[in-house]
Amino acid sequence: MIRMIVNPAESKWKELCARPETENTQLEDTVSIIFNEVKSMGDRAVKKNIKRYEGIEIEELFVSAEEVKNASSKLNRQLKNAIDVAYNNIEKFHASQKERLKQVEVIPGVSCWRESKAIEKVGLYIPGGTAPLFSTVLMLGIPAKIAGCKEVILTTPADKEKNIHPAILYSAELCGIKKIVKAGGIQAIAALTYGTESIPAVSKIFGPGNQYVTAAKQYAQRKGVAIDLPAGPSEVLVLADDSADAEFIAADLLAQAEHGTDSQCVLVTFNEKMVNQVNAAIKQQLQILERREIIEKSLKNSFAVVFQNKEQAIAFVNEYAPEHLIIMVNDEGDYLEEIVNAGSVFLGIYTPESAGDYASGTNHTLPTNGFAKAYSGVSLDSFVKKITYQRISPKGLQSLGQTIETMAAAENLTAHKNAVSIRLNKINRN
Amino acid sequence: MIRMIVNPAESKWKELCARPETENTQLEDTVSIIFNEVKSMGDRAVKKNIKRYEGIEIEELFVSAEEVKNASSKLNRQLKNAIDVAYNNIEKFHASQKERLKQVEVIPGVSCWRESKAIEKVGLYIPGGTAPLFSTVLMLGIPAKIAGCKEVILTTPADKEKNIHPAILYSAELCGIKKIVKAGGIQAIAALTYGTESIPAVSKIFGPGNQYVTAAKQYAQRKGVAIDLPAGPSEVLVLADDSADAEFIAADLLAQAEHGTDSQCVLVTFNEKMVNQVNAAIKQQLQILERREIIEKSLKNSFAVVFQNKEQAIAFVNEYAPEHLIIMVNDEGDYLEEIVNAGSVFLGIYTPESAGDYASGTNHTLPTNGFAKAYSGVSLDSFVKKITYQRISPKGLQSLGQTIETMAAAENLTAHKNAVSIRLNKINRN
Repeated sequence: MIRMIVNPAESKWKELCARPETENTQLEDTVSIIFNEVKSMGDRAVKKNIKRYEGIEIEELFVSAEEVKNASSKLNRQLKNAIDVAYNNIEKFHASQKERLKQVEVIPGVSCWRESKAIEKVGLYIPGGTAPLFSTVLMLGIPAKIAGCKEVILTTPADKEKNIHPAILYSAELCGIKKIVKAGGIQAIAALTYGTESIPAVSKIFGPGNQYVTAAKQYAQRKGVAIDLPAGPSEVLVLADDSADAEFIAADLLAQAEHGTDSQCVLVTFNEKMVNQVNAAIKQQLQILERREIIEKSLKNSFAVVFQNKEQAIAFVNEYAPEHLIIMVNDEGDYLEEIVNAGSVFLGIYTPESAGDYASGTNHTLPTNGFAKAYSGVSLDSFVKKITYQRISPKGLQSLGQTIETMAAAENLTAHKNAVSIRLNKINRN
Repeated sequence: MIRMIVNPAESKWKELCARPETENTQLEDTVSIIFNEVKSMGDRAVKKNIKRYEGIEIEELFVSAEEVKNASSKLNRQLKNAIDVAYNNIEKFHASQKERLKQVEVIPGVSCWRESKAIEKVGLYIPGGTAPLFSTVLMLGIPAKIAGCKEVILTTPADKEKNIHPAILYSAELCGIKKIVKAGGIQAIAALTYGTESIPAVSKIFGPGNQYVTAAKQYAQRKGVAIDLPAGPSEVLVLADDSADAEFIAADLLAQAEHGTDSQCVLVTFNEKMVNQVNAAIKQQLQILERREIIEKSLKNSFAVVFQNKEQAIAFVNEYAPEHLIIMVNDEGDYLEEIVNAGSVFLGIYTPESAGDYASGTNHTLPTNGFAKAYSGVSLDSFVKKITYQRISPKGLQSLGQTIETMAAAENLTAHKNAVSIRLNKINRN
């Protein structure tokens, strides 16, 4: 059951849209200690902290070729096929994000263009725990491969038998990832930040994680390593009119709710009856679900808002800026045009969020916590830098030179002006 | 004069490429106090801190329409023309960065696409001081306008007479910026972060600044506001073979050196003689330059490296990852292919960095401090989010459904699976 709010005054929206605060400042000391240990003692410190925090003694940090080979035989055919299908779809969509080179002759003799170059070294963090997130391996490994990143380091905690889940290894192999490190938590992020004898330092770190990993990524960012996105609990907003199916809505809200007790599910609709129907369906479906305890807790953070008109609903969605937005309405057009803040949008009653989470092709690493107002989800762009280039001919500089000289002089930067003047003098002498 | 290093061992490169550390932790208390004041007291706190730190009493925080109108008449025709030319070139290049919508039918019945939507509210910070950086107004205001940002707030400190430099106002007007706030420093960034009675809160803050502004932007980022780029002193690397012109190289190094005492200029070349020629030209050109004191200090951070071959030079450039890279060589092709870490690249002897700083069309807000390994400079992309969309037909879900169900079950997420199963059941019933 989720609580219902009918026609909230606009002054209440900000409060309604506020996500639970999750400051991790108390973790900072631990993070700083482990980072310093890894910086000074390298692999030894990584292993020591794996022992301390993950409870296993790792002799060899890297997964062996044999372990990777065995993984494939340990997976059933159905799961392998599913991973293969997802791989192909994700590959197809992310390959379509390649930018073609477009040279612009701004004025005669002055050409500018932009080219994407892969980030050379990237680290992918994949959490351990009960659910082996092999789907995230695909979501990060595929664009890294398309971008052409030279060094891709995947790091993930091993289980008590020092093994990595075969679906993770199989997915990593599909993505061409050769370096898989058996480390989780702060020590893994520290190793990617500073590098060790065996683990290369990277320029950007991707991937989800618990509060320790989140705090470690923030720390890494302060040390100059880029990160994919600021972190926050996962969330969905379903926007539905009376044409939608209450059972489908309930199923989508429950799917979000099972992620963790801090997940948030929001329903925006136009009719109290719909909320009651959805709540009835939630009650019924909940009976067959495995993660019932988690779901019941996260439904407490969740709510339904009933609005009187489309304009209010759209304005509320833009204020909330959901990570996932499912739209099940009759007249989609207006919504699509005017909703501008969302991570990923699912259209129509046969488009569950689960499709994008796994296999339709879009990325599932998305901005949470209202960050969709300013951030995009992970895409091919996240694995490249776009470098600008320019070439100016003597004629081009003769056209543009005075403009540059005038502006530089007005900003009191005479050396900037001189870099043009000295060239113009030489051109004029010849 | 810059010092010369001949053939440094690769083990020394990391040290050579290290930028001076600039930790601002001692500023954090001041930042936090001012942010809290602005959060609780709004405009009153902004004005109070302007008085305290900028030494002026501002009654009206916003520039009036009349002030904007007067600005145009205060500028001479030559400067207005120059700004107009730069505007057109920057507009043309950034407009070319628009992404056309590309819908991908991943498999029959499963369509995915990506669309750019403007970040609704952005803040542009323009520093005050001796040099009125109107060029930065263009570099940030033009892509904001092309993106279609609804609310663009420019904030910049006023002078002792409470005026803003007319070139800043004129440039802002060209970019269609209606809200210009007379505030600088930490209080300006705090106002953009939290909003006040008169200044709207924004989702992303752009622009350069001194150590206070940098520390404030970092703080804003921790409070959930996006920022353009991590900050660091400006830098140039000139890569030149014997075909280059020593006077041009000297002029480009000097242009960089005048930015501030912490600027860094690096020359990578293949011949000690070239370094000596460049040093002679530096000595000569320095005599006519206004910011001689600043330049002499920043040349102390600067150096020339002489390598024996192209491969070493390329590897060194990639390790340094310069903000600006000027390439003056005979055989450009190999360099262009293999240099992957740079903010913006200037090709040929008639392409000074000054061109990109002002008027050729490329953006001058670029990754410093080695961040070019992972970050791109500011572009149209910086002012939009790219939202993914998908639509699945009943037939599409029948094709893809089992893949999703299998993967969700393998990750122990049965509610994710159920969101598909419940839909497939309904499709099959019909």
